[in-house]
Amino acid sequence: MTARFHIPTLSIVGVGLLGGSIALACRQRGLADRILGCDRPEVLTRARERGMLDDATTDSCSAMTQASFAVFCTPVDTLPDVVGGCAFACRPGTLLTDVGSTKAEIARRLVNRLPPGVSFVGSHPLAGSEKAGPDHARADLFEGKLVVITPAGDPPAAVSTVSAFWQALGARVETMSPEQHDEALAMTSHLPHLVASVLAGVLPLEWKHLTATGFRDTTRLASGSPELWRAIFQCNQPALLTAAAEFRAHFDRFLDALAQGDGERLRLLLEQSKYVRDSL
Amino acid sequence: MTARFHIPTLSIVGVGLLGGSIALACRQRGLADRILGCDRPEVLTRARERGMLDDATTDSCSAMTQASFAVFCTPVDTLPDVVGGCAFACRPGTLLTDVGSTKAEIARRLVNRLPPGVSFVGSHPLAGSEKAGPDHARADLFEGKLVVITPAGDPPAAVSTVSAFWQALGARVETMSPEQHDEALAMTSHLPHLVASVLAGVLPLEWKHLTATGFRDTTRLASGSPELWRAIFQCNQPALLTAAAEFRAHFDRFLDALAQGDGERLRLLLEQSKYVRDSL
Repeated sequence: MTARFHIPTLSIVGVGLLGGSIALACRQRGLADRILGCDRPEVLTRARERGMLDDATTDSCSAMTQASFAVFCTPVDTLPDVVGGCAFACRPGTLLTDVGSTKAEIARRLVNRLPPGVSFVGSHPLAGSEKAGPDHARADLFEGKLVVITPAGDPPAAVSTVSAFWQALGARVETMSPEQHDEALAMTSHLPHLVASVLAGVLPLEWKHLTATGFRDTTRLASGSPELWRAIFQCNQPALLTAAAEFRAHFDRFLDALAQGDGERLRLLLEQSKYVRDSL
Repeated sequence: MTARFHIPTLSIVGVGLLGGSIALACRQRGLADRILGCDRPEVLTRARERGMLDDATTDSCSAMTQASFAVFCTPVDTLPDVVGGCAFACRPGTLLTDVGSTKAEIARRLVNRLPPGVSFVGSHPLAGSEKAGPDHARADLFEGKLVVITPAGDPPAAVSTVSAFWQALGARVETMSPEQHDEALAMTSHLPHLVASVLAGVLPLEWKHLTATGFRDTTRLASGSPELWRAIFQCNQPALLTAAAEFRAHFDRFLDALAQGDGERLRLLLEQSKYVRDSL
């Protein structure tokens, strides 16, 4: 869809890295007449200093009363309550979306919590950073990135509008069910974070000067917010446990070949992994 | 040590990423009167095209006859036989070193294989890349990087000279025993490579478009040469198995907290890992 996308009042709840980048991208592309941010006062001050917002409020209900389109950029575990707690204030026809890294639990917990005429269509932009806060927001964060849209019985027009929103920000979109999303992202995003954290956690501090770029790249994700990632892990617990079990079984295949001195099997395992990695 | 370091004839056996970078760095800094490369003909051709070498030979014994200082940049598993097989050709006083990622087995297998007056002092520059070959060599590869020197009963003057060599290339040096090196590097380098390979290996190919920078960074090492890393893993088998067991036990701590829904414990584990990662 290449049609011009236009929003009278865009409300962004949570003006950190992702919410702030949405604001900057919408500004740069002229997609909204007015951008209203909702967050804690100190975050709003910083977001206004960076020119992201036309107006600011600490009250999510007030942000909804004024919104024609709203994006929730808050932690996944509290997101259903945040949305459910203010959606009653929306005018009919208001469209809600989010940027959460897990989708099925959010969809489940929002069932029957939205007023008539208000739709919530989940989104997950595969963009971001281990850095947080409006200071790291960038207008080009979504350019060329994939955004997964996860309809759960929403009207097709609402799904199309949310897709058009992300495309207007320069992203590509793909649609799948919340459950398919969570299964795939457990493997492609949540498991790497878990693995990076475990690896960082076993490093004795007296050896840290013996790390080079290899250790640093492999553990970069471990610098992410513990509270955000605890929430993501817990909201996607079943799928992450399944992905972790697959990792553990494959880890044991490598260790078994190593323990048995089976160099040929070890080389084949390394070859297969290189093939996958080189194809990304 | 800041004294001027000078080599009449530097022989480099294996002119790939590391050997080629040593050649380029010595050229740029004027550290050798003559640089002699030893490798397969096609690698030597490419190295000469990049202006790395004054002379080239495919015969490591010839390279030793002419050398005053020699660096072996060959896979760790065959390195002791390569060194042992040509060291007899060295003149007394010739100093040998290497760039291998494992040290104890090399030191052990070189015992009683060097002629009188010839010393081998192991080195491991913590620099490199998943890329291989002389095309990726860079004169600044070692600048500011750490090189671990692993004396094993060598004359102190030989250890000092090898240290001075790396410092002359812009590196910092630290001395430890081959065994201490292998224990630490199993954790800081070999385990990350193993973990990256396992993670790449469990990704279903149909989900690869759902990976973002997190998955890519965490698995970057998996693009390394399977044959080189098979050799490294096998030459450091006991220490790598120990490091892998620590990783596995810590992985299970995370999974246990996740499976039990113990968010507070999960957050503390993530906090501790973030603390370590942020301190690098």
